[in-house]
Amino acid sequence: MLSKKIQAALEGSSAIRAMFVEGKELAAKVGAENVFDFSLGNPATPAPESVKQAIKDLLDETDPLVLHGYMSNSGYEDVRDAVAENLNSRFGTEFTGENIVMTVGAAGGINIVFKAVLDPGDEVIVFAPFFGEYKNYAANFDASVVAVAPDYETFEPNLEAFEAAFTDKTKAVLINTPNNPTGVIYSDETMKRIAEILTKKEAEYQKDLYLISDEPYRELVYDGAAENFLTKYYHNTIVGYSFSKSLSLPGERIGYLVVPNEASDAKDLLAGIEVANRTLGFVNAPSLMQKAVAACLGEKTDLDFYDKNRRDLYKGLTKLGFTCMKPQGAFYLWLKSPVENEADFVAAAKKYNLILVKGSAFGCGGYVRLAYCIPNEKINRSLTAFASLAKEYGLGE
Amino acid sequence: MLSKKIQAALEGSSAIRAMFVEGKELAAKVGAENVFDFSLGNPATPAPESVKQAIKDLLDETDPLVLHGYMSNSGYEDVRDAVAENLNSRFGTEFTGENIVMTVGAAGGINIVFKAVLDPGDEVIVFAPFFGEYKNYAANFDASVVAVAPDYETFEPNLEAFEAAFTDKTKAVLINTPNNPTGVIYSDETMKRIAEILTKKEAEYQKDLYLISDEPYRELVYDGAAENFLTKYYHNTIVGYSFSKSLSLPGERIGYLVVPNEASDAKDLLAGIEVANRTLGFVNAPSLMQKAVAACLGEKTDLDFYDKNRRDLYKGLTKLGFTCMKPQGAFYLWLKSPVENEADFVAAAKKYNLILVKGSAFGCGGYVRLAYCIPNEKINRSLTAFASLAKEYGLGE
Repeated sequence: MLSKKIQAALEGSSAIRAMFVEGKELAAKVGAENVFDFSLGNPATPAPESVKQAIKDLLDETDPLVLHGYMSNSGYEDVRDAVAENLNSRFGTEFTGENIVMTVGAAGGINIVFKAVLDPGDEVIVFAPFFGEYKNYAANFDASVVAVAPDYETFEPNLEAFEAAFTDKTKAVLINTPNNPTGVIYSDETMKRIAEILTKKEAEYQKDLYLISDEPYRELVYDGAAENFLTKYYHNTIVGYSFSKSLSLPGERIGYLVVPNEASDAKDLLAGIEVANRTLGFVNAPSLMQKAVAACLGEKTDLDFYDKNRRDLYKGLTKLGFTCMKPQGAFYLWLKSPVENEADFVAAAKKYNLILVKGSAFGCGGYVRLAYCIPNEKINRSLTAFASLAKEYGLGE
Repeated sequence: MLSKKIQAALEGSSAIRAMFVEGKELAAKVGAENVFDFSLGNPATPAPESVKQAIKDLLDETDPLVLHGYMSNSGYEDVRDAVAENLNSRFGTEFTGENIVMTVGAAGGINIVFKAVLDPGDEVIVFAPFFGEYKNYAANFDASVVAVAPDYETFEPNLEAFEAAFTDKTKAVLINTPNNPTGVIYSDETMKRIAEILTKKEAEYQKDLYLISDEPYRELVYDGAAENFLTKYYHNTIVGYSFSKSLSLPGERIGYLVVPNEASDAKDLLAGIEVANRTLGFVNAPSLMQKAVAACLGEKTDLDFYDKNRRDLYKGLTKLGFTCMKPQGAFYLWLKSPVENEADFVAAAKKYNLILVKGSAFGCGGYVRLAYCIPNEKINRSLTAFASLAKEYGLGE
């Protein structure tokens, strides 16, 4: 009765959401305060007060026929202009509103780019570990993802493997830095090499190859790392952005795409993306929220909150003998499972009310992801539970 | 460079949007006040004041982590419960929140139902004239629409042609009453016959056949007509709803789906729809707006506004000698072109600054659609322009 694709999707349904449900069930049993749920990347800092005020002002000062009405499928012109100006002032770019398409979150944005450029059978290269939904997004258009294994020391892309992954079916490379699930920020050197390889492959295959940059964590960087913006490396770069994390608005589904003039046939590409936004059923990004984020482009959520969690968790876990990547951005910590099959480790952790997500959900077994967007006091209490878990595996002895 | 599907979509792009653009260009030339733009179904009555107040109250009284946060992909439980109760009190149904999925407008809703049930090659029967986007929505899943010609007297479905349209590839029937573009409300008798035919065809083909009801105009009915709710006619009925018209919130992309328990394997179907909502990139309906509409389920926009337009336009046009369907619902008037090729008529109308949409955009040539959601004074001034147009065609002489 269900379509074959949805049957398959149901069977392989989101491991992250599944752990989130397990966490909720556990909370019902032992009390929410006793569950250390590291499963979901749900922001833990409230939206800035300015968002609330912006919405109220909009309600008081804007004609409701405009505020809640249809506009171009690419979004309000004033909003797109504001986004372009904000990017220009921060990153030295030279965008106008015409380079911007407002989208239903980054998930909506990636899907309309995929719809605009992917034909059945096309391949999208991703760098493992990667956000599992990318597979579903490619499958929506009968395309597939080709995962490139990481450098296991740095969890940056293995560039030799990257270069070897291209085929005549490759259409795009999807990149995510700061990275979910590792928290790694790809270096300037890595980005330059990726761009060089793409340029070489465009010449070799005599066709456009896109670099699609999924940037929901762009502003979540620590230890003084600079926010990066990837259009400077490679001409055919399309940026997908979401305000879910930077303004803690994940439920509102609001983001944007950037298509620079340097992209091949940029005008056609923008026209195709606009039509895809309409025909895939998004129609346009939510109208009130478009104007609200445009009024808050200079704001961001409380990074110190995540930074404190990051430091406490990393310090605590390494002290206990766990091997983990020190997160540089986003709000995830990537931990090496003490046993090869990390599903066993995830199950063992659950005995101590620790809810983790297995790395195989991100195409990289042997590791687990911790989303540390939970209250700080829980981070610190969780370390007692992790101590018991470490003991079970004979760590730190 | 663009995908083949999007290239095709660009070439056959929306005739409605194209006329809207023509109207804007004309307005720039002769002044907006002199253009009678009947192209776009954009609500002309503002959202009720209660929507504004509901949003403000929510901002003041709800934890922003909840108000703007992730929730189940099907929506907030309290919102889904409220929608179910509202339907039950109005239509005598017995839904719970579990029968409801909050969606990114009706367009998002139809797309996730299609994704959940359609396999490549499947056919969806629609009744001409029909909203042209249905074709794109089916094409998203490599399915196609099969249009059934109307009864040209009543513009209700021709039921003999309907019965003959089924094949072993038929998976669903998509229905829209009150109808865009005709303004016709299908009668109780018609709905019963449609249900009978579906039941017979389910037995004949030994498989589930869905009736998908696209109901954005449910509350926009005139002359004392009752609001109808279609799940009572046929077990496998899925309802798609949008608040775009009833609360004048088209830009907000907020609606819902109803899957009754009577549907075959209702639980699986709901699970499939929920996964489709996530994987197609909608993730969830915009969160603040979910809670806002839940607080305003008893409200509706100013129907008298549309009703006055409807009466004035119908009376004026028939007096001038035009042949048109008297609208019973929605905010469209369906007018017979005085010449067979209605594109010529649309072009002639433009000379008098009248922007109409050709019926062939709705799979029904020889007619044009007027969206009468414009200020009433314009309706009345437009009749002078229509008088000149009527004269050109020798009508009413």
